[in-house]
Amino acid sequence: MFVSESKIRIRYGDTDKMGYCYYGNYPEFYEAARSDAFRESGCSYRELEERGYMMPVISLSINYKKPAFYDDLITIKVFVKEKPGVKMKFEYEAYNENGELLNYGDTVLCFVNKATGRPCMAPDFFMDVIGKYF
Amino acid sequence: MFVSESKIRIRYGDTDKMGYCYYGNYPEFYEAARSDAFRESGCSYRELEERGYMMPVISLSINYKKPAFYDDLITIKVFVKEKPGVKMKFEYEAYNENGELLNYGDTVLCFVNKATGRPCMAPDFFMDVIGKYF
Amino acid sequence: MFVSESKIRIRYGDTDKMGYCYYGNYPEFYEAARSDAFRESGCSYRELEERGYMMPVISLSINYKKPAFYDDLITIKVFVKEKPGVKMKFEYEAYNENGELLNYGDTVLCFVNKATGRPCMAPDFFMDVIGKYF
Amino acid sequence: MFVSESKIRIRYGDTDKMGYCYYGNYPEFYEAARSDAFRESGCSYRELEERGYMMPVISLSINYKKPAFYDDLITIKVFVKEKPGVKMKFEYEAYNENGELLNYGDTVLCFVNKATGRPCMAPDFFMDVIGKYF
Repeated sequence: MFVSESKIRIRYGDTDKMGYCYYGNYPEFYEAARSDAFRESGCSYRELEERGYMMPVISLSINYKKPAFYDDLITIKVFVKEKPGVKMKFEYEAYNENGELLNYGDTVLCFVNKATGRPCMAPDFFMDVIGKYF
Repeated sequence: MFVSESKIRIRYGDTDKMGYCYYGNYPEFYEAARSDAFRESGCSYRELEERGYMMPVISLSINYKKPAFYDDLITIKVFVKEKPGVKMKFEYEAYNENGELLNYGDTVLCFVNKATGRPCMAPDFFMDVIGKYF
Repeated sequence: MFVSESKIRIRYGDTDKMGYCYYGNYPEFYEAARSDAFRESGCSYRELEERGYMMPVISLSINYKKPAFYDDLITIKVFVKEKPGVKMKFEYEAYNENGELLNYGDTVLCFVNKATGRPCMAPDFFMDVIGKYF
Repeated sequence: MFVSESKIRIRYGDTDKMGYCYYGNYPEFYEAARSDAFRESGCSYRELEERGYMMPVISLSINYKKPAFYDDLITIKVFVKEKPGVKMKFEYEAYNENGELLNYGDTVLCFVNKATGRPCMAPDFFMDVIGKYF
């Protein structure tokens, strides 16, 4: 299993008129945490794209338990529990500063070869760095 | 069943470096379509809040089939298939101008009484306008 | 002078905890209105990019007079007062449904030839459609 | 003069189809850096609101020199050069990891008493912490 952790500060622009962090911001927060996870794995998502691959998101789900508020510093934990193949699944848990679970969810991404535009297996150079976690 | 339909033009700011409409924009598009649905039902979400209720989102899921691109005018269909109770489920389908399904998903929202901060049944004035669809 | 007008519905996600439409959304609203202006001129910005040009924004200014609120349908008027050269200036005025001025501002964009990456004059095919307004 | 500095990582969702960080994101980045500045001054903007004040933005201007790209870690410097009165002006400079100036700009905010809804002087408890810089 590969695990990583990111901190995100809730901006004023993230809030809505309920005073909560708007529900629609979390997919971007998950992506920011996912980008951190790639970078920490030793192969950044930027490098993956530069080497000819891209990873569109094919599904997203989120369960919201508690809201975050302006200026909160939330923690997003990212888990990759299964060895990547053509797809790669990321699970997320967001916590506030009191350690309360705010929401959890997952995204499934797909490896695509940019040259052909078609789905493909995770490339070797990526499995070389991430493979040891599985 | 209650059904409504909204049009959304993809902005430049909605795109990402893949050239696609960023996956994280769709929850907000779904919300815009949901707001239109409320307004068309005869009780806008604004009115619902003014009369003492709010409806936080408790779950979200999206399945992405095809990307949208800059300047595309997409259609989002909203379906409410079950009579609202404490919860209200909205289903969504997004289509491009060729009628191709881009993505589909759902959100579950919960009625909350703002005075008590607690979940409650859909208020009578709302059921008076929406009830006839079920 | 070239003039156009766009309608934008304020989404829940556009609001902030003050209950106002967040100040940082207006650059994107201006861009949406600018895209509409291009499309109405007879040469969409999408076409401009497809034909080898792009137009990065080089300056932005906004003066905020009054806030917009959730579900407001605002009108953005776009004015191009000077004939485009290497640069093209757009001025904007945003109004609420009562005709009150919410904010006004301008952006200056620059024509760039995508092949060379360098600034250039507005291309002939664009001046053919927009030139008649000046 | 009060000076502070913030780091912001460019998210995938921040990019546009040019591959640049979208111009419309910078007002929110400036706000995030401004929130950090308040927090570092000893009186967070959250506290300011909790104690009965709010500070809507009354003007914004940005000059864009160079783009930022996905995964760039940019630095935003915030400068408050003049002692706050009814208004408070923040100036910003954004730099990439090579120390290149990406853009600079300013925002003017106004103190508003939430109880009256009217502009007012910067409150004493705020001047107690920020006053020493001028």
